[in-house]
This record gives sequence, structure tokens and C-alpha cells, in this order.
Amino acid sequence: MHIEKEKEKNLKFYNLKPIISPRHIAIIGASNNPNKIGNVIIKNYLSVGFTGKLYPINLTSDNIMNIKAYKSILDVKGEIDLAVIAIKAEGVPDVLEECGKAHVKGVVVVSSGFAEVGNIELQDKLVSIAKKYNMPIIGPNCLGIMDPLSRNDTLFLPTFKIERPSIGGVSFLVQSGAIGSTILDLISTEGFGLAKFISYGNAAVVDEVDLLNYLADDKQTKVIVLYIEGINRGKEFIEVAKRVSKKKPVIVLKGGVTDAGATAAFSHTASLTGSHIAYEAAFKQVGFIIAHDFDDMLDYAKIFDTQALSTGDRIAVITNGGGAGVLTTDAIYLNNMQLAELSKKVKAKLRKQMPSIVNIRMPLDIGGDADDKRYKDALDAVTNDPNVDSIIVITLFQTPGADEKVADTIIEYGTQYKKPLIVISMGGSYTQAHKAIIEEEGVPVYESPTAAARSLSALIKYARYKNE
Amino acid sequence: MHIEKEKEKNLKFYNLKPIISPRHIAIIGASNNPNKIGNVIIKNYLSVGFTGKLYPINLTSDNIMNIKAYKSILDVKGEIDLAVIAIKAEGVPDVLEECGKAHVKGVVVVSSGFAEVGNIELQDKLVSIAKKYNMPIIGPNCLGIMDPLSRNDTLFLPTFKIERPSIGGVSFLVQSGAIGSTILDLISTEGFGLAKFISYGNAAVVDEVDLLNYLADDKQTKVIVLYIEGINRGKEFIEVAKRVSKKKPVIVLKGGVTDAGATAAFSHTASLTGSHIAYEAAFKQVGFIIAHDFDDMLDYAKIFDTQALSTGDRIAVITNGGGAGVLTTDAIYLNNMQLAELSKKVKAKLRKQMPSIVNIRMPLDIGGDADDKRYKDALDAVTNDPNVDSIIVITLFQTPGADEKVADTIIEYGTQYKKPLIVISMGGSYTQAHKAIIEEEGVPVYESPTAAARSLSALIKYARYKNE
Repeated sequence: MHIEKEKEKNLKFYNLKPIISPRHIAIIGASNNPNKIGNVIIKNYLSVGFTGKLYPINLTSDNIMNIKAYKSILDVKGEIDLAVIAIKAEGVPDVLEECGKAHVKGVVVVSSGFAEVGNIELQDKLVSIAKKYNMPIIGPNCLGIMDPLSRNDTLFLPTFKIERPSIGGVSFLVQSGAIGSTILDLISTEGFGLAKFISYGNAAVVDEVDLLNYLADDKQTKVIVLYIEGINRGKEFIEVAKRVSKKKPVIVLKGGVTDAGATAAFSHTASLTGSHIAYEAAFKQVGFIIAHDFDDMLDYAKIFDTQALSTGDRIAVITNGGGAGVLTTDAIYLNNMQLAELSKKVKAKLRKQMPSIVNIRMPLDIGGDADDKRYKDALDAVTNDPNVDSIIVITLFQTPGADEKVADTIIEYGTQYKKPLIVISMGGSYTQAHKAIIEEEGVPVYESPTAAARSLSALIKYARYKNE
Repeated sequence: MHIEKEKEKNLKFYNLKPIISPRHIAIIGASNNPNKIGNVIIKNYLSVGFTGKLYPINLTSDNIMNIKAYKSILDVKGEIDLAVIAIKAEGVPDVLEECGKAHVKGVVVVSSGFAEVGNIELQDKLVSIAKKYNMPIIGPNCLGIMDPLSRNDTLFLPTFKIERPSIGGVSFLVQSGAIGSTILDLISTEGFGLAKFISYGNAAVVDEVDLLNYLADDKQTKVIVLYIEGINRGKEFIEVAKRVSKKKPVIVLKGGVTDAGATAAFSHTASLTGSHIAYEAAFKQVGFIIAHDFDDMLDYAKIFDTQALSTGDRIAVITNGGGAGVLTTDAIYLNNMQLAELSKKVKAKLRKQMPSIVNIRMPLDIGGDADDKRYKDALDAVTNDPNVDSIIVITLFQTPGADEKVADTIIEYGTQYKKPLIVISMGGSYTQAHKAIIEEEGVPVYESPTAAARSLSALIKYARYKNE
């Protein structure tokens, strides 16, 4: 432990705050031509209402989107936190040199055409300029950064294709741009909030080690989600990962867990993914939460973003559908948890409140005709019972009594108590509308017993790791 | 084999066709009072445009929803195929006797209050009346039947809560009403077509053995989906299951696979679920496709409903996102399939067609800027290559080139060739709109690599079973 602390002291990190949450930005390659990436980027800044200064840099025009433009970043008088570079690859080293001379605090290079197409020499030039000026670079060949709080948005994606998410506590670190844009789009639809989104591409200078380290101390970030295909600095990664994991949950989805997948990953990002078993062991050792697919990744992020940690595995299940209660019970035990056994006092009270047909045992099937009153009594019982650690509420909104009052009752108990509470609801537009209302208030809704149980199990596992 | 055939001959089955696809229906308990189930049911028949004769039976009113009503089914002159009974449990035996005397061909008892609440004696009365008149009864305590083709619809569910699905090839057999209504709602949203939906409740007379046997010979039914918690007639079930499974795929989701889940199942439907291992072994033996959750169940149904069977496991993957290709490759190998190795000729042709940056190997990453032309070339190659058994097409609609023309190209190749072709697309409203277009034409779209690979693997497994 002592040795590790020593090691950690020796790790040096760039100051990434000016890149991620900049006040003043230069856009090199900003353009009035709507077919240019530099046009999409400056329009994004204008549309999200970026409040700092924007300096378009363009060789031929002195006015870009009605903002005064400069021929070179060296012509700009004011302080610049971030330079976004969106020009052809060949021109990048020269403008990077200028960025260094202009004392820019950091750069995002969205341009592609570097190591990913075999142009290693050109990428090496970037690395040496970064070192020369001690200037952090994200990219090249990346989407860059979206930070809804500072309204930093280097993404060059058409907004009609990808909805922008709301502000929240989940940060995403994604090497691949395509995966990144898909994730962004998915989380916008799922309606949970984004802290920082960083697609870091070739990771020539700033890599996942630096970014994880940054997010560990970022107060807005409650949960970190990481998609990786390989890690270059293994030792440093483990060191930083341990530190981060004791502070906040890190969910990791790794591409290339089979031999064929690893080969495909090498062809994709030139990542040497190494042995899957070694990775899995390393992730477990540092307390990372391993997701096996996009579904898992977003399901887990949702529970960690909204629910308190809990080490107990005694789960209360309330349901208005018998079969769904059976499937959820299966899922609970298959994920190494157990049904709670209600205390005698709580049972006696419920016996008086519930219709005689209701069996006072777990899973608590409160009947296909259950209304908000019955949900309230059941929720009151389980939230106050010391024998219950977490709660799964199943509401099949297809049944007669399940309506917006039931949703309100779930929200009331899901937000006022510290016990983790999650919901299972499956169905069409009526269900989806209620799901949106419940999730809006910070109570996660899952569309299958398996997804709910897996997520709750991940929460408990991490809570235990953190408590060790 | 010889002995089994003998056995099968000895199994007797009710003629269920008049219940499932009736021409003329009596509704006992039909009512003008909108709070009565008998009102919802007759309104449903009117709203779906049932074309046969409807005979409302009501003790006090001679006009129900502007249709002539009768005091007793014995007063009806015409032939009656199906009587739907929606009155209080106590009154059911008497009207059932009348149904028998009136030579009704079958009955659906939606009323509850029988064995499921311990009223076993009352349920026994139903069974003896059914035997006396050799009259099949579905229920009691069930939602009953939805057959969009004959417009039979005994379901008493409000339409604003549950959308009605379109006509298609998938039939659902569900004991539980709540699970049934949830499934109905889900498949309406998913947009794949329904053949028959049967929720059979307490299974006092007609059970899953009878219904499976019926669906085996139902021409409209291409795929059978079964949710069960337990089986009472094990031997007969196995016999019928074997016969069905050689004719068409049966997907089974079983509730109560853990000890606790089994206990919950007993409390729910009084099903003695028995050993999970024994069930799983039995299901495998008869070639059933085992689903582990709702997701699985619907994912599998979708591929079996739309794609040709194929025993080969050499999968071609076309993708416009590298990371998604990596994850899909992992999922293929984790589900015991392999990447196809393209033939030399096809590779050479692709090399000429694709940009130099595209690596001509599986997974075939055709680039983040891939448009319909590039998809067409790639699809043409893999559909015509004898080294390819099935195709997974990944389209991240977030990328610039992916649009409705790409969707049209996928549909073209997904519908004109016999090789199974499925799509992976994840994302928000733009993606969802394209997903709907593609699925409308009969090409299944999955929202994760895992779901796609699991479904394709299930298809191959079943194809091999059938070929044995």
C-alpha cells in the first residue's frame, strides 16, 4: 500500500480542466461552408449558447458566422483555454506549433488521417509538439468533448440524427467515435443526465489514464462509464483505476473479449487487447463494474446515478402481476441476492391493510387490481422494515388500477428514502409515458426482471468493494 | 419411435377451432354498464368489427349495445360456436350446464374466483360439466383469446392501455393474464404480427398440451411462444411437444427456475414447477428454444417469424462502426458461432469496390462514412458468397452516410435472399424511425450485439434440431 502511494505520487497529469470546461475557445478551421466540419462545430457552440469568447481561425475569411475571424491563433489577443482543430491532417502540426506559442491551455484535434490510417510519423509530430509546450491534446481522430455544464461541445454530429442529453451525473469515456455517438444518442433517449462526454480517439497524448484521473476529482461526475478496446499504460491504468474506484463507480465495457473480437479490435483502433482473462481479473481487482453489452452499460449507469449504495442483499419485491413476480424472484437468486423476509410487525400490519386474497410473503403480489393506495401501503411497509435492504417495484401498467397515481406513489417512496428502489415496467406507449415520468424524478425503470436484478446486484457488489 | 406413435394415437383432443376462430358467439354477462367486464368484451367485438352473429345474454335487459339480448343461451335459435362467460364465479356452473344443453362448441370462462383462491370444489364442477357434454372450456380466471384473423377477442383490457397488434405468424400461449397483457402490449409496440394469443388461466379443462397440439396444425402459426410456470401432464406434454417442435419452432419462457421462484410460482398459479434441471432437460430433448427473459422471448420470436432456417454458423458482419463490429464479433463467438471467411473471388471484387482504407476481412468495417452504395456492394458480396451462412448488418444511423437509402438497401437484401439477415441498430428517434421501416418489411432489428447474436444462435440451433 505504501509503495503504491509512492508510485502514485510519481504519476504526472496534464491539467485538463481548461480543455473540458473552457471559458474561451479558438476554432481552427472554422468555416462558413456548411459542408465543412469547422462549420458544424462553430454552429454547435452558437446553438448551445456558449457564453465565453469564440475565436474562429480561418485563412481566407475575416468573418465566420458573424464573428470576427483571425488568420492565425497568434493574432488573437485574449486568453485561449481550448483550441479545436478541424483542418486537414497535414496542416495540423503547423497550427499546433502556433497553439503552443500562443500559450493555449489545451487542444482537441478532431481531424483524422493519423495513426489510424498508418500515418504514424504525422502523429508522432503531434506528440512531440505536445511535449515541447507541455500542452495536452485530445485526439486526433476523435469526436472530442461535450460538457453540457460549460456548454463546451466539439462534436460535429448533425443534431437531427443525435439528440443532446440533459445535464446529470454520468460521464462517458469512449475511444471510438461511432460508439460514442451511439451512446450519446441512447442516453438522450433514456433521459438520464450527462456530466462529461469524452471521445478521445487515437489517444496520442491524453489517454484513458489521464481522463479517468481527471474524472475522479470532477465533482459533477458521480459515475464513470468507459468503453475500451485496449490499454497501453497498464501499470498506470491500474494505479489510477484503484484510486478512482474508491471514490466513485466505474462501469467498463470492453470490446475484444474473444480472440476474434480482439483481432477485430486491433484492426479498429490498433489496440493490443491482450488476454481477456487478464483484463477481467484486473477490472475486478480495482473494483470496476463489468458490463457485457450496451444494455448492461446503460442499465448500470442508471442505478448508480440515482440510487444510494447498499451492501445488503435482502430484496423486497412488490408486484401487481404474479408471473412477473416469479420471473423477478428467479432473477434475484440467479444474481446472488435473496428475497427479504418481512418482520413480524410489518407482516401483521400488511395483513390488516391488504385484501384477504393477498398472500403476505415475498414476492408481495398485491393483485392485478392494485391501485395507488395498495402500492402506498406496501411501499410504506418495505421502506420501513429493517429486514429489507433494497426494493424492486413491479408495475404492469396494463392492469386496471395502475395509473399516474401509482407512478406518483412510486416516485414518493423512491426519492424520500435512502434504500435503493428500482422499478420494472414493460409495455407500449402507456407504459413508456409512465416510465418517463418516473425516471424524470430519478427512479430508474427497467424493462425486464433480468436487467433490474443485474443492475441491483452490480450496485451491491460495488458498495461492498467500496466498504472493504 | 413406433411406441411413441402408438401413444400419440391414444391422446385425445377437443376440437378447439370453434373456440379460437368462432363464427357465432354468445356473451353471457354482456352488459350496458361500462363498469362490467361483460360490457368491455361486447364493445371489443363491436370495435374490431366481428362479422359473425353476437348473442348477448343478460338476465334483465333485452337489448345490449343495440343488439337483441337473451335471458338464457337456451333461448338462442342459431348455432353458437363460442360462449364467453363473464359473470360471478358462483353462477358459472348453472350457465355452463345451459351451454352444454345448447350444444355450444366451446366456452371461455373469464370469471375468476375458482381454484386460484382455493375454491377447488367450484372448479371441479366446471370440469365435470365439461366432461358431461364433451365441451372444451378455456379458463377459468383467464383473459381468453385474441385471434385477429377471425376477429375473436375475449380480452377485457382497456384499449388505451394496451395497443392491439397486427396480424402475423407468432402465437402466444400464456397461463398468466398479467404476463399475457404485458406481452400483447410489448408485441404491439415491437410491431410484429400476431397469429393467436391465448391466456388460459387455471387450465381446468383445456391446458397447454391441448393448445400446443392445436397450434401445431394451425396454418397461420409459424412460431409458438409459451410462458409457463409448471406442467401438470408431463408425459402428454413431452409427446405433443416433440410433434410440434418438428413442425415449427416453440420458444419457452419458464417462471420458477430457482427454488424461491418455484415457491413464488406455486403461490401464483398453484403450479408444482418441479426441478428446473428436469424441465430444462425436457425442453432441450424436445427441441424447444429456451428464453431466459421477456427480451429473449421477443427477440427470438422476431427472427423465427421472419427468417429462413439455416444450420450454418459462418456469419458475415458488415458494419459502419468499428467498435460495434468488435462487440458483435465477441457476441458471435460467445454464442458458439464464427465469422465467415469470404471466398477469394468475392474478396478481390470488394477490394476494387471499397475505399483503400477499408480492410477486406470480417467484421467488414465499411467506414463511418458508408452510404447506401457501399452497403449495397458489401451486401451483394456476402449474400452471394457460398462461404457465408448468415448476415449481421450493423448500421449506426448516427453516422453521416446512414439514411433511408441505407435502410432500403438492407430491406432489399434482407427480403430477396434466403440467407438469414438481421440488423443491429441502437439509438434515439432517428434510429427508431428507421428500425420501424426495416422491421415493417420483415427484417428484424436488434438493439444490441448480444440480442442479435443470441437470436441468430437460437435459429441455427433449432434448424439443426429440425434437420436431425
